[in-house]
Amino acid sequence: MNASARPTGPFVAACSDVLGAAHVLTDPRDTAPFLTDWRRRYTGEACAVLLPADTQQVAAAVRLAREYRVAIVPQGGNTGLAGGATPDTSGAQAVVSLRRLNRIRDVDPHNNTITVEAGVVLAEIQARAEAEQRLFALSLAAEGSCMIGGNLSTNAGGTGVLRYGNTRELCLGLEVVTPQGEIWDGLRALRKDNTGYDLRDLYIGAEGTLGIITAAVMKLHPAPVARVTALAGLASPHAALDFLAMAQRHAGALLTGFELMSDFSLRLVGRHFGQMRYPFAEPHAQTVLLELSDSESEEHARTLFERLMEEAIGKGLVEDAVVAENLAQSQAFWDLREHIPLAQAAEGLNIKQDISVPISSIGRFIDETDALIAKTAPGARMVTFGHLGDGNLHYNVQAPEGVDPEQFLADYQKRINTLVYEQVHAHRGSISAEHGLGQLKVDEAMRYKSPVEVRLMQAIKAALDPENLMNPGKVVRVPGRSGEKAS
Amino acid sequence: MNASARPTGPFVAACSDVLGAAHVLTDPRDTAPFLTDWRRRYTGEACAVLLPADTQQVAAAVRLAREYRVAIVPQGGNTGLAGGATPDTSGAQAVVSLRRLNRIRDVDPHNNTITVEAGVVLAEIQARAEAEQRLFALSLAAEGSCMIGGNLSTNAGGTGVLRYGNTRELCLGLEVVTPQGEIWDGLRALRKDNTGYDLRDLYIGAEGTLGIITAAVMKLHPAPVARVTALAGLASPHAALDFLAMAQRHAGALLTGFELMSDFSLRLVGRHFGQMRYPFAEPHAQTVLLELSDSESEEHARTLFERLMEEAIGKGLVEDAVVAENLAQSQAFWDLREHIPLAQAAEGLNIKQDISVPISSIGRFIDETDALIAKTAPGARMVTFGHLGDGNLHYNVQAPEGVDPEQFLADYQKRINTLVYEQVHAHRGSISAEHGLGQLKVDEAMRYKSPVEVRLMQAIKAALDPENLMNPGKVVRVPGRSGEKAS
Repeated sequence: MNASARPTGPFVAACSDVLGAAHVLTDPRDTAPFLTDWRRRYTGEACAVLLPADTQQVAAAVRLAREYRVAIVPQGGNTGLAGGATPDTSGAQAVVSLRRLNRIRDVDPHNNTITVEAGVVLAEIQARAEAEQRLFALSLAAEGSCMIGGNLSTNAGGTGVLRYGNTRELCLGLEVVTPQGEIWDGLRALRKDNTGYDLRDLYIGAEGTLGIITAAVMKLHPAPVARVTALAGLASPHAALDFLAMAQRHAGALLTGFELMSDFSLRLVGRHFGQMRYPFAEPHAQTVLLELSDSESEEHARTLFERLMEEAIGKGLVEDAVVAENLAQSQAFWDLREHIPLAQAAEGLNIKQDISVPISSIGRFIDETDALIAKTAPGARMVTFGHLGDGNLHYNVQAPEGVDPEQFLADYQKRINTLVYEQVHAHRGSISAEHGLGQLKVDEAMRYKSPVEVRLMQAIKAALDPENLMNPGKVVRVPGRSGEKAS
Repeated sequence: MNASARPTGPFVAACSDVLGAAHVLTDPRDTAPFLTDWRRRYTGEACAVLLPADTQQVAAAVRLAREYRVAIVPQGGNTGLAGGATPDTSGAQAVVSLRRLNRIRDVDPHNNTITVEAGVVLAEIQARAEAEQRLFALSLAAEGSCMIGGNLSTNAGGTGVLRYGNTRELCLGLEVVTPQGEIWDGLRALRKDNTGYDLRDLYIGAEGTLGIITAAVMKLHPAPVARVTALAGLASPHAALDFLAMAQRHAGALLTGFELMSDFSLRLVGRHFGQMRYPFAEPHAQTVLLELSDSESEEHARTLFERLMEEAIGKGLVEDAVVAENLAQSQAFWDLREHIPLAQAAEGLNIKQDISVPISSIGRFIDETDALIAKTAPGARMVTFGHLGDGNLHYNVQAPEGVDPEQFLADYQKRINTLVYEQVHAHRGSISAEHGLGQLKVDEAMRYKSPVEVRLMQAIKAALDPENLMNPGKVVRVPGRSGEKAS
């Protein structure tokens, strides 16, 4: 089981002393759920899965890991899409699950903040905020099982970014266990604090490679009185871009959602989820889902939508539009959007991308890249959808009709990935907009970043984690370390 | 002139070769404006003031500084309030002024971004955004002369933070010259990018101690159609807090300003700027200035204000209220707020604080701290005003009526500073909310931060600037370095 040359038994025994034997898992039946990632792309081994009860125990476990030279892989809800929370195959690493750190420590409605431990499930934070007539604005597909510590460590995005920002913008303060096993209490609940280096934002998005986030102060917003959605059918991504600018001019900060769905994305939903109804009589090349969050009234939002659609149709930008008449219809529109990934899965394996480019370049990016893919893999079907308002596309490629998906991936995945990354690079975009690097894209990131940036990242990693024990092999390659490339 | 043991002549000569002699100032008549800070609290010496023309020249100057072991003090508009851009008194340091890097490189209205060099004056960015029907939301007193590089390096706040965030939240990407004289091109114009450590936010607020920001991609927002202000008279800061929550519930993201002004603050304005009219018949213990930025119409904003004030007066929260009837009256309300610091200066020297606490603690903080100051310095007059919506107060202390301000400062400044800092610390606040640490508060920051946090900051400084040549003595104390405490 343990492929490492270094015996990890004494470390495991010492952890049992500190955490209690019941919270140090070693039996394969117990550890299995922690060793495979959500998409089942990576399976690792671990000398143990540790389940500390609180921040002090996390710190104690890290100190033991340091003493015994055991590398640590922090894990939240294990819903990550880049393998960032899966250990390597050596069996020498220990997973530290934060799931028992699941307390909401404080809610302060006047300050619009909530203080939560790393293992609190995202949906629970949303619910608690709602109970206080507040909104916790982070929202994403995995919200029923992902944990805030993982959201912070990957700087998760989701559907609320257009108005409220990424997880980074929703965080005011952190508590972190450093690689030395010390506790940094940076749990500030302040909107303004200019007293030194921004350690908070350094840990956010670092995927556990610089320390373990154990708690956070998150921002709340006043809850909107009404949320109304609408769908608009358009001829092209270019039209969608012009429409976005128009919608922002009309609605300002009330516009909280602007999601693009290509015709083929919605056809897939129709094929696999027949009960989902596309509300337009004719198909449109692109469909946009808009959401307004209004602090006045539903009526106000509907009037705003009607005014916007009138102008957009009048100017020939929008071909057809429908404003949801009630909550159920709003939900039905969102369901269309949210069933695209599920419909894709039902259609078979596919090549997934999570890219961003400047919003103004999206139209050109899609035109050019679609053409290149059509040349490389004739008949490949493009499932293009995502957060247009953030410049973030899930630009996915499905095998041609009738072609075996596994064979297609074997033949084309590498070439298409390279082609897309080159296009993203040429448009000064990001190859991982909201999912992080994990182990999936760390080598690509090192290749596409400038040598200056890679050296800066390495200098920071070496300064804070000189022994490279915190989630090694994720996010950044440490020079002169072999054995990092496992799995 | 040059108090250092190390001769800087060869460095200055080498800089002249690279930048041209006209852009290497050494004559005291030329260098004087760069050597004293805006508040005239610090005056330093410099072996030269360098005026590079572009990023390449900044990098060349930094490489020379490294070669000749000359410390560098970056400077923008020299309007900082904490002495962060003033060299020490040794005469061995060189000031690098960014004022010639003053190009707007790009405006992308569809992406809502503007790419600017470090030396562009803030007001110029605002004007350029306006020409594109966009808003650049950073706004502060010095906007006519401060430069965006300095705003970024100090993470400036100002009056738009409630809705749009600090400078940090308005920045998408940076170009930085590292202490090694390399250029990091991080000029990304992306809303989402999760590919590694957040170097951008590390440089923001680092006050030039980790490198020199030479350019940035800044966020724009759709320009609001109307801005309307109102004043409300209230009995206490506690009432103002409840009123803030009510205003946020009514107006959501339309609420872009919420400024508190104590009775005495406004009396001082009345005394020194008689032409400024307080619009209420009776004085109120606290006056709040509210601003709505509306994407629909002025009428819509006014209706919203009227509905809010009706509820607030009905519930006894607000004693009296007036909504500005036109642009001129809106401006007059802002003038009241903006003349408080000027009235203070006219009244004489005073003890200034730029603190923040959680918004929910502001009432208690003011009550407790006012009482402590009254006991310590009987008769001292409290000039309390600021960005209540951000938890940020300018909590200033004026000498008692008739007491010589200089004598008062000599007697009380240290004790009152300590008392306020202790109170801020007890309320988990910040001793520098929006002005940075510079040289003014670096020792206090080191004292109030935990040893863990200080060590983390020192590790980052040592990793990125191992020779401590970038603005030494500012923001963080480097262990084992003497001579840092100059000036």
